[in-house]
Amino acid sequence: MQHFDANSLLSLNDRYRTNLINSLHGARPAMLIGTKNKQGNTNLALFSQVLHLGANPALCGILFRPDSVDRHTLQNIRETGFFTLNSTTEGMEDRAHQTSARYAETVSEFDACGFEAEYREGFFAPFVAESPVKIGLKAQPEIRIEANGTILLLGAVEHLFVHPDILAETGHINHHHAKSLAVAGLDTYVGLKPIARFSYAKPDQALQKLEL
Amino acid sequence: MQHFDANSLLSLNDRYRTNLINSLHGARPAMLIGTKNKQGNTNLALFSQVLHLGANPALCGILFRPDSVDRHTLQNIRETGFFTLNSTTEGMEDRAHQTSARYAETVSEFDACGFEAEYREGFFAPFVAESPVKIGLKAQPEIRIEANGTILLLGAVEHLFVHPDILAETGHINHHHAKSLAVAGLDTYVGLKPIARFSYAKPDQALQKLEL
Repeated sequence: MQHFDANSLLSLNDRYRTNLINSLHGARPAMLIGTKNKQGNTNLALFSQVLHLGANPALCGILFRPDSVDRHTLQNIRETGFFTLNSTTEGMEDRAHQTSARYAETVSEFDACGFEAEYREGFFAPFVAESPVKIGLKAQPEIRIEANGTILLLGAVEHLFVHPDILAETGHINHHHAKSLAVAGLDTYVGLKPIARFSYAKPDQALQKLEL
Repeated sequence: MQHFDANSLLSLNDRYRTNLINSLHGARPAMLIGTKNKQGNTNLALFSQVLHLGANPALCGILFRPDSVDRHTLQNIRETGFFTLNSTTEGMEDRAHQTSARYAETVSEFDACGFEAEYREGFFAPFVAESPVKIGLKAQPEIRIEANGTILLLGAVEHLFVHPDILAETGHINHHHAKSLAVAGLDTYVGLKPIARFSYAKPDQALQKLEL
């Protein structure tokens, strides 16, 4: 196998190291964050570093890198306290990727990249009309990670909209049925191919396959 | 669309809410964390909440839930300071899921679930022999998230092993070629279906499709 240690990683050229380290963990959900500033300008940006922090109450976490191009997103969230997380699906990959371009603050990525902004239930931040999973969140106190200045932004779920076709009776959202996208590294979009769903694992008991 | 607000989420039955909130964000990388305690007992556990925190130096983050069954993993990392992150691939899904059973502390999930432990470069914690991406990490100070007691554990990459067949000339790890697994919610394993790879996005410039 190809071996890198901490020193050989540091001596790689920047581009190679960025590609390598960004693709270490495989495919992460590709989600669009929708925001609006106090002047009413909307912003839309692709994020893949989203955590599930807890179900009761429902809390999400988003990691912002200090060198991130998504400064308008964080700025708008700090200014207004609200944002949306919207799923992406096959067919949206090129428009979703285009939101990562460094547009001027007055340009809305909704318009520039071909997404329709949608407002629901009086929530301040715009949702993505075509996304089958849309989450409206209220920002909670930020956590600054001293090691390298990254910021973990927490959000409490205030509204959740799910297309009924992809919501199972058990409460699961069926992402392969929804054709949800994930992104590996910085530029590679993948769809989801169902493999297996298993029962709760117990020692000394065989797993059962559940309906996918 | 089906609509839930913060109050209706709280009034759902626990199982339904857990399924719903855990599956909100789509598919996340399914990775195995290998550890060993001071007595030499090894442990292996499946995690899907792994963040990329930075490339220079290479830092990863793992979210531990307070109600997690993976207490041995965190305990071993706190005791010894070292752990490994290993990719999972198609064909490993049942054994990987089985590591989430609550085995006694003296039982190694490597043995109980059918994985071979491998030691490389004198690193303390065991790697998963068959994983095409293996990362050896040194624990950094933990971050406790006050909102609900979850813990973000940081790890600095000390060793990285990548199978040469899946490492592109540009430094990308090709996860769909590796047949890497992702997990949606708590129990659904998915493979990756290549869709598109795009050039760096710029305003007013069309994206180019790159070779996948």
